[in-house]
Amino acid sequence: MADKKLSGAGLRGQSAGETKLCTVGKSGSGLTYCGYDVSDLADNATFEEVAYLLFNGELPNQAQLDAYIAELKGMRDLPEDLKSVLKLIPKDAHPMDVMRTGASFLGNLEPEVDFADQNRAANRLLAAFPAIMTYWYRYSHEGVEIACTTEEDSIGGHFLALLTGKTPSELHRKVMDVSLILYAEHEFNASTFTARVCASTLSDLFSCITGAIGSLRGPLHGGANEAAMEMIQKFSSPEDAKIQMAGMLERKEKIMGFGHAIYRESDPRNVIIKKWSKLLSEEYGDSSLYDISVACEEYMWDTKKLFCNADFFHASAYFFMGIPTKLFTPIFVCSRLTGWAAHVMEQRDNNRIIRPSADYTGSEPRSVNPIAERG
Amino acid sequence: MADKKLSGAGLRGQSAGETKLCTVGKSGSGLTYCGYDVSDLADNATFEEVAYLLFNGELPNQAQLDAYIAELKGMRDLPEDLKSVLKLIPKDAHPMDVMRTGASFLGNLEPEVDFADQNRAANRLLAAFPAIMTYWYRYSHEGVEIACTTEEDSIGGHFLALLTGKTPSELHRKVMDVSLILYAEHEFNASTFTARVCASTLSDLFSCITGAIGSLRGPLHGGANEAAMEMIQKFSSPEDAKIQMAGMLERKEKIMGFGHAIYRESDPRNVIIKKWSKLLSEEYGDSSLYDISVACEEYMWDTKKLFCNADFFHASAYFFMGIPTKLFTPIFVCSRLTGWAAHVMEQRDNNRIIRPSADYTGSEPRSVNPIAERG
Repeated sequence: MADKKLSGAGLRGQSAGETKLCTVGKSGSGLTYCGYDVSDLADNATFEEVAYLLFNGELPNQAQLDAYIAELKGMRDLPEDLKSVLKLIPKDAHPMDVMRTGASFLGNLEPEVDFADQNRAANRLLAAFPAIMTYWYRYSHEGVEIACTTEEDSIGGHFLALLTGKTPSELHRKVMDVSLILYAEHEFNASTFTARVCASTLSDLFSCITGAIGSLRGPLHGGANEAAMEMIQKFSSPEDAKIQMAGMLERKEKIMGFGHAIYRESDPRNVIIKKWSKLLSEEYGDSSLYDISVACEEYMWDTKKLFCNADFFHASAYFFMGIPTKLFTPIFVCSRLTGWAAHVMEQRDNNRIIRPSADYTGSEPRSVNPIAERG
Repeated sequence: MADKKLSGAGLRGQSAGETKLCTVGKSGSGLTYCGYDVSDLADNATFEEVAYLLFNGELPNQAQLDAYIAELKGMRDLPEDLKSVLKLIPKDAHPMDVMRTGASFLGNLEPEVDFADQNRAANRLLAAFPAIMTYWYRYSHEGVEIACTTEEDSIGGHFLALLTGKTPSELHRKVMDVSLILYAEHEFNASTFTARVCASTLSDLFSCITGAIGSLRGPLHGGANEAAMEMIQKFSSPEDAKIQMAGMLERKEKIMGFGHAIYRESDPRNVIIKKWSKLLSEEYGDSSLYDISVACEEYMWDTKKLFCNADFFHASAYFFMGIPTKLFTPIFVCSRLTGWAAHVMEQRDNNRIIRPSADYTGSEPRSVNPIAERG
C-alpha cells in the first residue's frame, strides 16, 4: 500500500493537510496566528482575544469580547463529581496525567452532543482547565479544597488567583496573558496533529483534547520549560552557569530550551518572554535567575550558535511569579487548548479520515505451528 | 515548509513509517500479524497467544503461554479509587468515554515509570479493561458492584463472566476469543496512528492508549458493528431487510458494516466471524438475526458489489451472546489495545517525533487594529 516512500521519518516537511490558522518559520514573519504576527498579538491583544480569533477567524470587537469574557467566566466552576475525581489523584501523579484525566472525565459529564456544540465544549475546557489543575494541586499538596471561581476577568489572572489564593499584581496578570498568547498555536506540531487525527474519525472534542494532552506530555514536545528550570536552578551565578554548561556539553548532555525543529535562526517568542522575565526579576527583587538565564543564552549562542526557544525564559518568568515547576506544562495545556480546538474545528470543516500506510519490514508469511512444537 | 504536496487528503497511500506487525490487503493474504494469516491465528491460536506475538514478535511455547496467562490473571482487579471514579460516571455516558477515562485514571495510579516498564503497563491494561468496562456498566445500569476477578483463564471468558455473572459456555468463550483475535491489529489505522504520534513525543503508554481510544470512538472508525446492529434489529425478516435496504440506498443513507478503505474485494475477517455467528444462532435457538444478516450481505453484493467487513456479522454474533450493543466498541478496545501497545513499542524502538507540515491557506499578513476600530 505504501507506494510513495517519504524522504524522512516523522513526516518531516510533508504536508498533512491545509490550515488557515498558523504559519511557522515563514520568511519575514516567524509565527502568525490567522495572519497576525505573534508579537503584535502579545503587544496589542489579550489571550481571550486570541482564543476568539482562533475559534472564529477574526478578532472580536469590544461587545463581542465583553460577551466572550462573560461567557467564559460563567463556565469556570467544576462539577462536584469532577472535584471528587481530582481528589482521588495522588500527590505524586504526573500533572499532565491530571489534566488528561480531568479533560476525559469532564467529557463524561458534559459531552459534546454534536458538532454544533463544539464552541461550547471548547470554551468550557478553556474556562475549566485552570481550576482542574489548581484544584488537584492545592488539594494534594496543601490539603486545601479551593473555590474554583474568582473575580478575575482574564484566564491568566484567574489561574494565578486560584493558585495563590491572592489577587495577582497587574504585572503578573499581564505576563500570564502574554505567556498564554505565545503558547496558543503552532501549526501541525505533534499534539495538534494528534488532535486532528482524532478529529478525522469524527470523534468528539473531549477525545481530541485528551489525546493532545497525552502527546504534549512527552519530553520531546512539552516540558522543555520545566527542564530548563531544573537546569538554571542548579547554577549559582552567571559564571557558574557557563562553567557547568561547558561540562554538560562535554558530556553530551541534552540542554533543553534551545534550538527548534522548524525555526532556524531564532524563536520569535523568545524576545517577548525575555523582556517580561526581566521586568519580573526587577519586581521580584533578586534578578539572579534572570542573569543566569542571560548567561546561558549568551554561552549557547557563542559556543553552539543555538538560540533560546520560547521555553527558556518562560522558566525564570514563571519562577518569579511563584509558579511551581511541575505546573509549567499544564499551563501550556491551558493555552494550546485554543490551537487544538481550532484545528479540530478546521479538520471537521473539510474532513477525510487520516489513515496513512506503512512500509512492511516484518516476517515473511508463515504458518501457526502447534504449541507443543514451538521452541 | 510544506514542500511536497501530497496527492490525497488524509495521508492516504502515504507511508508514515515502518512496521513489522501487520500487512493489510497485500496480494495473496488479506491480513497478517507478524507474518501469520489472521484466519490461521483464529483457527489455531488464542487471543493471549496473539497478544504475546504482537508484544514479543513470536508465538509463545506452552511454558511461556502458561506464565503469561497467569501474569494476566493476576493483574485483573481494579484499584478501589478507580472503582470510585467509574461509579461517578453516569449511566448515559458514552461507553468509550468510560474506557478513555478508565485508562487515563489508571495512569495516575500506576504510571509507566520508564520504557522498561512498557510490557507491564500494556499487560495491566489488557487485564484490566474488561473490568473497567463491566464494573461501570453493571454499576450504572444494574446497581451491582461486581467483583473484578473471575476464574476464567481467557480474557474473552473473563469478560463474559464479568458481564453476565455466569460461567460462559465453551462456544461463547471460543467466539469471544476469535473476535478479540480478529480486531487485534490493523496496521496504521487512525487510532493506531494516534498512538504512534503520541508515542513519538516519548510520552507514556497510558497517554498513547487513552488517545487511541478517543480516535476509535469516532463513527468513521470504531462503532460500525453497533451501527450494523441497530440496522438489522429494525428488519423483521430477510425479505423485509431487502425491501428496507433498497429504501435506504434510494435515500442515500449510509449502510454500516460494508466495504473497506483498504480491502477491495473482501474483508478476510468476515468469513471467520460469519461462521461463528451461524453456530451461535443455532445455539441461541432463533436464527432470524443471522438469516437477516445473510440477506443483507447478499443484497449489498448483488446491488452494489459491496462486501461485509469485519463488523457486520460481529453484530449478530455479539447479540447471540447477550452483549449489549453499547459495549461493542469497548470490546474493540479490549482487543485493539494489543495492536496499539505493540505499535507504541515499535515506535519507541526507532523513534523520530511525528511532526508533519501544513499548506497555509489563511489570511495574508495583517496588523492588530485597536479594538475600538473593529467592525
